[in-house]
Amino acid sequence: MAQNIYDQPEFFAAYSQLGRSVQGLDGAAEWPALRAMLPDVGGLDVVDLGCGFGWFCRWARENGAAAVLGLDISEKMLGRARQATADHAITYQVADLEHPDLSEGAFDLAYSSLAFHYVADAARLYGQIHRALRPGGRLVFSTEHPIYMAPTSPGWAQGPDGGRIWPLNQYLVEGPRTTDWFAPGVVKHHRTIGTTLNALIGAGFTITCVEEFCPTPDQIAAQPALAEEVERPMFLLISALRG
Amino acid sequence: MAQNIYDQPEFFAAYSQLGRSVQGLDGAAEWPALRAMLPDVGGLDVVDLGCGFGWFCRWARENGAAAVLGLDISEKMLGRARQATADHAITYQVADLEHPDLSEGAFDLAYSSLAFHYVADAARLYGQIHRALRPGGRLVFSTEHPIYMAPTSPGWAQGPDGGRIWPLNQYLVEGPRTTDWFAPGVVKHHRTIGTTLNALIGAGFTITCVEEFCPTPDQIAAQPALAEEVERPMFLLISALRG
Repeated sequence: MAQNIYDQPEFFAAYSQLGRSVQGLDGAAEWPALRAMLPDVGGLDVVDLGCGFGWFCRWARENGAAAVLGLDISEKMLGRARQATADHAITYQVADLEHPDLSEGAFDLAYSSLAFHYVADAARLYGQIHRALRPGGRLVFSTEHPIYMAPTSPGWAQGPDGGRIWPLNQYLVEGPRTTDWFAPGVVKHHRTIGTTLNALIGAGFTITCVEEFCPTPDQIAAQPALAEEVERPMFLLISALRG
Repeated sequence: MAQNIYDQPEFFAAYSQLGRSVQGLDGAAEWPALRAMLPDVGGLDVVDLGCGFGWFCRWARENGAAAVLGLDISEKMLGRARQATADHAITYQVADLEHPDLSEGAFDLAYSSLAFHYVADAARLYGQIHRALRPGGRLVFSTEHPIYMAPTSPGWAQGPDGGRIWPLNQYLVEGPRTTDWFAPGVVKHHRTIGTTLNALIGAGFTITCVEEFCPTPDQIAAQPALAEEVERPMFLLISALRG
Protein backbone atom coordinates (compact mmCIF):
# COMPACT_ATOMS: atom_id res chain seq x y z
CA MET A 1 0.00 0.00 0.00
CA ALA A 2 1.20 3.49 -0.80
CA GLN A 3 2.12 5.73 2.13
CA ASN A 4 -0.77 7.97 3.22
CA ILE A 5 1.11 11.00 4.48
CA TYR A 6 -1.80 13.31 3.74
CA ASP A 7 -3.88 12.05 6.66
CA GLN A 8 -1.18 12.86 9.24
CA PRO A 9 -2.56 15.92 11.08
CA GLU A 10 0.69 17.90 10.87
CA PHE A 11 1.07 17.26 7.14
CA PHE A 12 -2.59 17.91 6.39
CA ALA A 13 -2.57 21.24 8.22
CA ALA A 14 0.50 22.49 6.36
CA TYR A 15 -0.58 21.13 2.96
CA SER A 16 -3.95 22.83 3.37
CA GLN A 17 -2.16 26.22 3.43
CA LEU A 18 -0.41 25.76 0.05
CA GLY A 19 -1.44 28.11 -2.74
CA ARG A 20 -2.76 25.19 -4.75
CA SER A 21 -4.85 24.04 -1.77
CA VAL A 22 -6.34 27.47 -1.08
CA GLN A 23 -6.69 28.87 -4.59
CA GLY A 24 -7.14 25.56 -6.41
CA LEU A 25 -5.94 25.07 -9.98
CA ASP A 26 -5.03 28.74 -10.43
CA GLY A 27 -2.67 28.45 -7.46
CA ALA A 28 -0.55 25.89 -9.34
CA ALA A 29 2.02 27.42 -11.71
CA GLU A 30 2.03 24.35 -13.96
CA TRP A 31 -1.76 24.22 -14.38
CA PRO A 32 -1.93 26.32 -17.59
CA ALA A 33 0.64 24.01 -19.22
CA LEU A 34 -1.18 20.89 -18.04
CA ARG A 35 -4.56 22.30 -19.11
CA ALA A 36 -3.13 22.93 -22.62
CA MET A 37 -2.43 19.18 -22.88
CA LEU A 38 -6.04 18.22 -22.06
CA PRO A 39 -8.65 17.40 -24.67
CA ASP A 40 -12.00 19.24 -24.60
CA VAL A 41 -13.59 17.50 -21.62
CA GLY A 42 -17.14 18.13 -22.85
CA GLY A 43 -19.17 14.92 -22.64
CA LEU A 44 -16.22 12.84 -21.38
CA ASP A 45 -16.16 10.32 -18.57
CA VAL A 46 -13.21 11.37 -16.44
CA VAL A 47 -11.20 9.79 -13.63
CA ASP A 48 -8.87 11.89 -11.46
CA LEU A 49 -6.20 9.73 -9.79
CA GLY A 50 -5.14 11.48 -6.58
CA CYS A 51 -7.87 14.11 -6.67
CA GLY A 52 -7.09 15.72 -3.31
CA PHE A 53 -9.60 18.48 -2.53
CA GLY A 54 -11.38 17.84 -5.84
CA TRP A 55 -10.49 21.08 -7.61
CA PHE A 56 -9.96 19.36 -10.98
CA CYS A 57 -13.09 17.22 -10.61
CA ARG A 58 -15.19 20.35 -10.22
CA TRP A 59 -13.35 22.10 -13.07
CA ALA A 60 -14.02 19.14 -15.37
CA ARG A 61 -17.74 19.25 -14.59
CA GLU A 62 -17.84 23.04 -15.02
CA ASN A 63 -16.33 22.42 -18.46
CA GLY A 64 -18.92 19.86 -19.49
CA ALA A 65 -17.57 16.46 -18.43
CA ALA A 66 -20.36 13.87 -18.34
CA ALA A 67 -19.18 12.34 -15.07
CA VAL A 68 -16.10 12.49 -12.89
CA LEU A 69 -14.68 9.90 -10.51
CA GLY A 70 -12.21 11.32 -8.00
CA LEU A 71 -9.89 8.84 -6.28
CA ASP A 72 -7.59 9.56 -3.36
CA ILE A 73 -5.89 7.71 -0.55
CA SER A 74 -6.73 10.48 1.93
CA GLU A 75 -10.07 10.32 3.72
CA LYS A 76 -9.51 13.84 5.00
CA MET A 77 -9.03 15.28 1.55
CA LEU A 78 -12.04 13.42 0.16
CA GLY A 79 -14.08 14.75 3.10
CA ARG A 80 -13.25 18.30 2.07
CA ALA A 81 -13.85 17.48 -1.60
CA ARG A 82 -17.32 16.11 -0.83
CA GLN A 83 -18.20 19.21 1.21
CA ALA A 84 -17.26 21.44 -1.71
CA THR A 85 -19.87 20.20 -4.16
CA ALA A 86 -23.44 18.91 -4.36
CA ASP A 87 -22.91 17.72 -7.96
CA HIS A 88 -24.20 14.14 -8.25
CA ALA A 89 -22.10 13.56 -11.38
CA ILE A 90 -18.96 13.74 -9.25
CA THR A 91 -18.16 10.65 -7.19
CA TYR A 92 -15.33 10.42 -4.67
CA GLN A 93 -13.79 7.13 -3.56
CA VAL A 94 -10.88 6.11 -1.37
CA ALA A 95 -8.29 4.31 -3.50
CA ASP A 96 -4.68 3.17 -3.26
CA LEU A 97 -2.92 3.84 -6.57
CA GLU A 98 -0.63 0.85 -5.89
CA HIS A 99 -3.73 -1.32 -6.35
CA PRO A 100 -6.20 0.67 -8.40
CA ASP A 101 -9.51 -1.00 -9.04
CA LEU A 102 -10.68 0.72 -12.20
CA SER A 103 -13.53 -0.58 -14.36
CA GLU A 104 -12.49 -1.72 -17.83
CA GLY A 105 -13.23 0.72 -20.67
CA ALA A 106 -15.05 3.12 -18.35
CA PHE A 107 -13.25 6.41 -19.07
CA ASP A 108 -12.30 8.79 -21.88
CA LEU A 109 -9.80 10.77 -19.83
CA ALA A 110 -7.54 9.80 -16.95
CA TYR A 111 -6.00 12.79 -15.18
CA SER A 112 -3.54 13.01 -12.34
CA SER A 113 -1.73 15.88 -10.68
CA LEU A 114 1.44 15.18 -8.65
CA ALA A 115 0.35 11.80 -7.32
CA PHE A 116 2.20 9.17 -9.39
CA HIS A 117 5.56 9.82 -7.69
CA TYR A 118 4.07 8.27 -4.54
CA VAL A 119 3.47 5.01 -6.42
CA ALA A 120 6.18 2.32 -6.34
CA ASP A 121 4.83 0.19 -9.20
CA ALA A 122 4.05 2.76 -11.87
CA ALA A 123 4.10 0.19 -14.70
CA ARG A 124 1.21 -1.70 -13.09
CA LEU A 125 -0.69 1.56 -12.62
CA TYR A 126 -0.21 2.56 -16.28
CA GLY A 127 -1.47 -0.88 -17.35
CA GLN A 128 -4.58 -0.46 -15.21
CA ILE A 129 -5.22 3.01 -16.61
CA HIS A 130 -4.79 1.77 -20.19
CA ARG A 131 -7.35 -0.98 -19.50
CA ALA A 132 -9.74 1.53 -17.93
CA LEU A 133 -9.65 3.89 -20.92
CA ARG A 134 -11.74 3.49 -24.03
CA PRO A 135 -9.92 3.41 -27.41
CA GLY A 136 -8.94 6.97 -28.23
CA GLY A 137 -8.88 7.86 -24.55
CA ARG A 138 -6.13 9.96 -23.04
CA LEU A 139 -3.93 9.97 -19.97
CA VAL A 140 -2.71 13.44 -18.97
CA PHE A 141 -0.66 13.76 -15.79
CA SER A 142 1.98 15.66 -13.88
CA THR A 143 4.57 14.15 -11.59
CA GLU A 144 7.62 15.42 -9.76
CA HIS A 145 10.49 15.70 -12.21
CA PRO A 146 13.23 13.11 -11.61
CA ILE A 147 15.86 15.87 -11.58
CA TYR A 148 14.00 17.37 -8.63
CA MET A 149 13.61 14.06 -6.84
CA ALA A 150 16.94 12.32 -7.42
CA PRO A 151 19.51 14.15 -5.26
CA THR A 152 20.58 13.08 -1.79
CA SER A 153 20.47 16.82 -0.86
CA PRO A 154 17.52 18.17 -2.84
CA GLY A 155 17.91 21.90 -2.26
CA TRP A 156 19.70 24.89 -3.80
CA ALA A 157 23.45 25.09 -3.29
CA GLN A 158 26.30 27.32 -4.41
CA GLY A 159 28.05 26.19 -7.58
CA PRO A 160 31.71 26.31 -8.64
CA ASP A 161 31.23 29.77 -10.19
CA GLY A 162 29.31 31.10 -7.16
CA GLY A 163 25.85 30.93 -8.65
CA ARG A 164 22.81 28.92 -7.59
CA ILE A 165 22.93 25.27 -8.64
CA TRP A 166 20.90 22.12 -8.06
CA PRO A 167 23.30 19.49 -6.64
CA LEU A 168 22.30 16.60 -8.86
CA ASN A 169 23.48 13.10 -8.03
CA GLN A 170 22.08 9.55 -8.00
CA TYR A 171 19.93 10.34 -11.04
CA LEU A 172 20.34 6.85 -12.47
CA VAL A 173 19.74 5.13 -9.12
CA GLU A 174 16.01 4.51 -9.18
CA GLY A 175 13.92 3.72 -6.12
CA PRO A 176 12.52 5.38 -2.99
CA ARG A 177 13.54 8.84 -1.81
CA THR A 178 12.63 9.88 1.72
CA THR A 179 12.33 13.60 2.41
CA ASP A 180 10.90 15.85 5.07
CA TRP A 181 8.12 17.90 3.45
CA PHE A 182 5.60 19.21 5.99
CA ALA A 183 6.21 15.96 7.90
CA PRO A 184 9.24 13.70 8.36
CA GLY A 185 9.63 10.60 6.24
CA VAL A 186 7.63 11.38 3.11
CA VAL A 187 8.43 8.57 0.64
CA LYS A 188 8.52 9.24 -3.11
CA HIS A 189 9.66 6.90 -5.87
CA HIS A 190 12.36 8.14 -8.23
CA ARG A 191 12.25 7.00 -11.85
CA THR A 192 14.05 8.47 -14.85
CA ILE A 193 12.06 10.06 -17.66
CA GLY A 194 13.11 7.12 -19.84
CA THR A 195 11.70 4.59 -17.39
CA THR A 196 8.41 6.50 -17.16
CA LEU A 197 8.02 6.81 -20.94
CA ASN A 198 9.05 3.21 -21.64
CA ALA A 199 6.55 1.96 -19.04
CA LEU A 200 3.77 3.99 -20.69
CA ILE A 201 4.77 2.68 -24.14
CA GLY A 202 4.95 -0.85 -22.71
CA ALA A 203 1.41 -0.47 -21.36
CA GLY A 204 0.20 0.32 -24.90
CA PHE A 205 0.19 4.12 -24.83
CA THR A 206 1.42 6.44 -27.58
CA ILE A 207 3.32 9.42 -26.16
CA THR A 208 1.80 12.66 -27.50
CA CYS A 209 3.49 15.39 -25.43
CA VAL A 210 6.25 15.67 -22.82
CA GLU A 211 6.78 18.98 -20.99
CA GLU A 212 9.47 19.71 -18.44
CA PHE A 213 7.61 22.60 -16.86
CA CYS A 214 9.15 26.05 -17.24
CA PRO A 215 7.28 29.12 -15.98
CA THR A 216 6.48 31.67 -18.67
CA PRO A 217 8.01 35.18 -18.58
CA ASP A 218 4.57 36.51 -17.58
CA GLN A 219 4.41 34.08 -14.66
CA ILE A 220 7.89 35.08 -13.49
CA ALA A 221 7.00 38.79 -13.75
CA ALA A 222 3.91 38.21 -11.61
CA GLN A 223 5.70 35.90 -9.15
CA PRO A 224 9.48 36.57 -9.15
CA ALA A 225 10.22 33.57 -6.92
CA LEU A 226 9.45 31.38 -9.93
CA ALA A 227 12.65 32.59 -11.65
CA GLU A 228 14.69 29.88 -9.94
CA GLU A 229 12.58 27.25 -11.69
CA VAL A 230 14.51 27.78 -14.96
CA GLU A 231 17.60 26.30 -13.29
CA ARG A 232 16.05 22.84 -12.95
CA PRO A 233 12.54 21.51 -13.61
CA MET A 234 10.29 20.61 -10.69
CA PHE A 235 7.44 19.09 -12.68
CA LEU A 236 7.17 16.63 -15.56
CA LEU A 237 3.94 16.78 -17.60
CA ILE A 238 2.98 13.95 -19.94
CA SER A 239 0.13 13.30 -22.35
CA ALA A 240 -0.43 9.81 -23.80
CA LEU A 241 -3.02 8.29 -26.10
CA ARG A 242 -4.67 4.88 -25.83
CA GLY A 243 -4.79 3.87 -29.52
CA MET B 1 26.01 25.86 -41.32
CA ALA B 2 26.92 23.71 -38.32
CA GLN B 3 30.34 24.28 -36.77
CA ASN B 4 32.96 21.86 -38.14
CA ILE B 5 35.22 21.49 -35.14
CA TYR B 6 36.37 18.06 -36.23
CA ASP B 7 38.54 19.36 -39.05
CA GLN B 8 40.58 21.60 -36.74
CA PRO B 9 43.98 19.83 -36.50
CA GLU B 10 44.20 20.08 -32.71
CA PHE B 11 40.69 18.70 -32.22
CA PHE B 12 41.10 15.98 -34.81
CA ALA B 13 44.35 14.74 -33.27
CA ALA B 14 42.84 14.51 -29.78
CA TYR B 15 39.52 13.05 -30.92
CA SER B 16 41.40 10.37 -32.87
CA GLN B 17 42.85 9.08 -29.59
CA LEU B 18 39.47 8.47 -27.89
CA GLY B 19 38.56 4.88 -27.09
CA ARG B 20 35.62 5.08 -29.48
CA SER B 21 37.92 6.35 -32.25
CA VAL B 22 40.56 3.67 -31.78
CA GLN B 23 38.40 0.67 -30.81
CA GLY B 24 35.27 1.67 -32.70
CA LEU B 25 31.82 0.72 -31.46
CA ASP B 26 33.16 -1.50 -28.68
CA GLY B 27 35.02 1.50 -27.28
CA ALA B 28 31.73 3.30 -26.63
CA ALA B 29 30.06 2.35 -23.34
CA GLU B 30 26.60 3.21 -24.65
CA TRP B 31 26.89 1.10 -27.83
CA PRO B 32 25.34 -2.11 -26.38
CA ALA B 33 22.29 -0.10 -25.24
CA LEU B 34 22.01 1.68 -28.60
CA ARG B 35 22.50 -1.60 -30.51
CA ALA B 36 19.64 -3.14 -28.49
CA MET B 37 17.34 -0.43 -29.87
CA LEU B 38 18.21 -1.21 -33.51
CA PRO B 39 16.11 -3.41 -35.76
CA ASP B 40 17.76 -6.32 -37.57
CA VAL B 41 19.65 -4.40 -40.24
CA GLY B 42 19.64 -7.35 -42.70
CA GLY B 43 18.53 -6.10 -46.13
CA LEU B 44 17.94 -2.53 -44.96
CA ASP B 45 18.97 0.69 -46.66
CA VAL B 46 20.73 2.65 -43.93
CA VAL B 47 21.87 6.25 -43.49
CA ASP B 48 24.32 7.21 -40.73
CA LEU B 49 24.09 10.93 -39.91
CA GLY B 50 27.45 12.03 -38.53
CA CYS B 51 29.27 8.80 -39.41
CA GLY B 52 32.76 9.92 -38.38
CA PHE B 53 35.31 7.22 -39.09
CA GLY B 54 32.57 4.94 -40.45
CA TRP B 55 32.59 2.29 -37.74
CA PHE B 56 28.80 1.92 -37.72
CA CYS B 57 28.58 1.93 -41.54
CA ARG B 58 30.94 -1.05 -41.67
CA TRP B 59 29.11 -2.77 -38.80
CA ALA B 60 25.79 -2.38 -40.62
CA ARG B 61 27.22 -3.98 -43.78
CA GLU B 62 28.84 -6.78 -41.77
CA ASN B 63 25.37 -7.42 -40.34
CA GLY B 64 23.68 -7.61 -43.73
CA ALA B 65 22.54 -4.07 -44.56
CA ALA B 66 21.80 -3.73 -48.29
CA ALA B 67 23.51 -0.36 -48.60
CA VAL B 68 24.81 2.31 -46.24
CA LEU B 69 25.19 6.03 -46.77
CA GLY B 70 27.55 7.72 -44.31
CA LEU B 71 27.24 11.49 -43.94
CA ASP B 72 29.61 13.75 -42.06
CA ILE B 73 30.68 17.37 -42.03
CA SER B 74 34.33 16.41 -41.59
CA GLU B 75 36.38 15.75 -44.72
CA LYS B 76 39.17 14.36 -42.56
CA MET B 77 36.93 11.81 -40.89
CA LEU B 78 35.41 10.76 -44.21
CA GLY B 79 38.92 10.38 -45.62
CA ARG B 80 39.75 7.89 -42.88
CA ALA B 81 36.38 6.17 -43.30
CA ARG B 82 36.99 5.70 -47.05
CA GLN B 83 40.45 4.26 -46.42
CA ALA B 84 38.99 1.70 -44.00
CA THR B 85 36.81 -0.13 -46.51
CA ALA B 86 36.66 -1.23 -50.14
CA ASP B 87 32.95 -2.09 -49.84
CA HIS B 88 31.09 -0.51 -52.77
CA ALA B 89 27.76 -0.71 -50.89
CA ILE B 90 29.05 1.93 -48.48
CA THR B 91 29.02 5.51 -49.77
CA TYR B 92 30.45 8.48 -47.87
CA GLN B 93 29.38 12.07 -48.50
CA VAL B 94 30.12 15.42 -46.93
CA ALA B 95 26.92 16.82 -45.43
CA ASP B 96 25.83 19.59 -43.06
CA LEU B 97 23.07 18.28 -40.77
CA GLU B 98 21.66 21.84 -40.58
CA HIS B 99 20.75 21.42 -44.24
CA PRO B 100 20.56 17.72 -44.94
CA ASP B 101 19.79 16.78 -48.50
CA LEU B 102 18.25 13.33 -48.12
CA SER B 103 16.32 11.57 -50.89
CA GLU B 104 12.63 11.03 -50.13
CA GLY B 105 11.69 7.50 -49.05
CA ALA B 106 15.21 6.19 -49.60
CA PHE B 107 15.98 4.54 -46.26
CA ASP B 108 14.68 1.95 -43.80
CA LEU B 109 16.93 3.02 -40.93
CA ALA B 110 18.40 6.36 -39.98
CA TYR B 111 21.13 6.11 -37.34
CA SER B 112 23.14 8.76 -35.58
CA SER B 113 25.66 8.67 -32.75
CA LEU B 114 26.40 11.85 -30.79
CA ALA B 115 25.95 14.27 -33.68
CA PHE B 116 22.51 15.87 -33.25
CA HIS B 117 23.63 18.09 -30.35
CA TYR B 118 25.73 20.04 -32.87
CA VAL B 119 22.59 20.90 -34.84
CA ALA B 120 20.73 24.15 -34.03
CA ASP B 121 17.51 23.33 -35.90
CA ALA B 122 16.76 19.79 -34.79
CA ALA B 123 13.07 20.03 -35.74
CA ARG B 124 13.99 20.64 -39.38
CA LEU B 125 16.43 17.72 -39.27
CA TYR B 126 13.80 15.35 -37.83
CA GLY B 127 11.38 16.43 -40.57
CA GLN B 128 13.97 15.68 -43.24
CA ILE B 129 14.72 12.29 -41.73
CA HIS B 130 11.01 11.43 -41.51
CA ARG B 131 10.65 12.30 -45.21
CA ALA B 132 13.73 10.23 -46.10
CA LEU B 133 12.43 7.11 -44.33
CA ARG B 134 10.02 4.63 -45.85
CA PRO B 135 6.83 3.82 -43.91
CA GLY B 136 7.79 1.50 -41.06
CA GLY B 137 11.32 2.92 -41.06
CA ARG B 138 13.14 3.74 -37.85
CA LEU B 139 15.28 6.51 -36.45
CA VAL B 140 17.68 5.37 -33.71
CA PHE B 141 20.10 7.91 -32.28
CA SER B 142 22.17 9.02 -29.33
CA THR B 143 22.81 12.60 -28.31
CA GLU B 144 24.40 14.31 -25.36
CA HIS B 145 21.95 14.31 -22.46
CA PRO B 146 20.59 17.78 -21.65
CA ILE B 147 21.54 17.31 -17.98
CA TYR B 148 25.13 16.93 -19.15
CA MET B 149 24.97 19.89 -21.50
CA ALA B 150 22.96 22.47 -19.58
CA PRO B 151 25.21 23.74 -16.75
CA THR B 152 27.35 26.84 -16.93
CA SER B 153 30.09 24.82 -15.16
CA PRO B 154 29.69 21.31 -16.61
CA GLY B 155 32.03 19.34 -14.38
CA TRP B 156 31.97 17.44 -11.07
CA ALA B 157 31.78 19.53 -7.93
CA GLN B 158 31.46 18.91 -4.18
CA GLY B 159 27.90 18.88 -2.89
CA PRO B 160 26.38 20.12 0.39
CA ASP B 161 26.97 16.74 2.05
CA GLY B 162 30.54 16.47 0.75
CA GLY B 163 29.88 13.99 -2.04
CA ARG B 164 30.30 14.34 -5.79
CA ILE B 165 27.50 16.27 -7.49
CA TRP B 166 26.75 17.63 -10.95
CA PRO B 167 26.11 21.40 -10.55
CA LEU B 168 22.95 21.63 -12.62
CA ASN B 169 21.61 25.01 -13.61
CA GLN B 170 20.06 26.68 -16.68
CA TYR B 171 18.35 23.41 -17.61
CA LEU B 172 15.27 25.18 -18.95
CA VAL B 173 17.28 27.80 -20.84
CA GLU B 174 17.63 26.26 -24.27
CA GLY B 175 20.16 27.33 -26.86
CA PRO B 176 23.90 27.17 -27.58
CA ARG B 177 26.47 26.02 -25.05
CA THR B 178 30.13 26.74 -25.75
CA THR B 179 32.70 24.48 -24.10
CA ASP B 180 36.36 23.66 -24.47
CA TRP B 181 36.60 19.99 -25.45
CA PHE B 182 39.88 19.15 -27.21
CA ALA B 183 39.67 22.66 -28.73
CA PRO B 184 38.31 25.98 -27.47
CA GLY B 185 34.87 27.13 -28.50
CA VAL B 186 33.03 23.90 -29.30
CA VAL B 187 29.37 24.87 -29.80
CA LYS B 188 26.57 22.47 -28.84
CA HIS B 189 22.83 23.14 -28.74
CA HIS B 190 20.99 22.46 -25.51
CA ARG B 191 17.40 21.23 -25.69
CA THR B 192 15.33 19.57 -22.99
CA ILE B 193 14.18 15.97 -23.40
CA GLY B 194 10.65 17.32 -23.78
CA THR B 195 11.65 19.58 -26.66
CA THR B 196 13.45 16.73 -28.41
CA LEU B 197 10.54 14.30 -28.03
CA ASN B 198 7.89 16.85 -29.00
CA ALA B 199 9.89 17.78 -32.11
CA LEU B 200 10.10 14.12 -33.12
CA ILE B 201 6.36 13.67 -32.50
CA GLY B 202 5.67 16.87 -34.45
CA ALA B 203 7.69 15.52 -37.37
CA GLY B 204 5.39 12.47 -37.46
CA PHE B 205 7.40 9.96 -35.45
CA THR B 206 6.08 7.58 -32.80
CA ILE B 207 8.44 7.32 -29.82
CA THR B 208 9.30 3.65 -29.18
CA CYS B 209 12.11 3.83 -26.60
CA VAL B 210 13.91 6.47 -24.52
CA GLU B 211 17.04 5.51 -22.57
CA GLU B 212 19.03 7.75 -20.30
CA PHE B 213 22.20 5.72 -20.51
CA CYS B 214 23.38 4.01 -17.33
CA PRO B 215 26.38 1.68 -17.43
CA THR B 216 25.62 -1.90 -16.35
CA PRO B 217 27.23 -3.38 -13.22
CA ASP B 218 29.42 -5.51 -15.52
CA GLN B 219 30.61 -2.42 -17.37
CA ILE B 220 31.44 -0.65 -14.10
CA ALA B 221 33.31 -3.72 -12.81
CA ALA B 222 35.39 -3.79 -16.00
CA GLN B 223 35.91 -0.01 -16.11
CA PRO B 224 35.51 1.50 -12.59
CA ALA B 225 35.68 5.08 -13.90
CA LEU B 226 32.18 4.52 -15.28
CA ALA B 227 30.76 4.46 -11.73
CA GLU B 228 30.37 8.24 -11.72
CA GLU B 229 27.96 7.97 -14.63
CA VAL B 230 25.17 6.85 -12.27
CA GLU B 231 25.18 10.35 -10.72
CA ARG B 232 23.97 12.03 -13.91
CA PRO B 233 23.41 10.74 -17.45
CA MET B 234 25.81 11.74 -20.22
CA PHE B 235 23.90 10.20 -23.13
CA LEU B 236 20.28 10.17 -24.26
CA LEU B 237 19.26 7.31 -26.58
CA ILE B 238 16.03 7.45 -28.56
CA SER B 239 14.23 5.12 -30.95
CA ALA B 240 11.34 6.38 -33.08
CA LEU B 241 9.12 4.83 -35.73
CA ARG B 242 7.92 6.39 -38.96
CA GLY B 243 4.34 5.05 -39.09
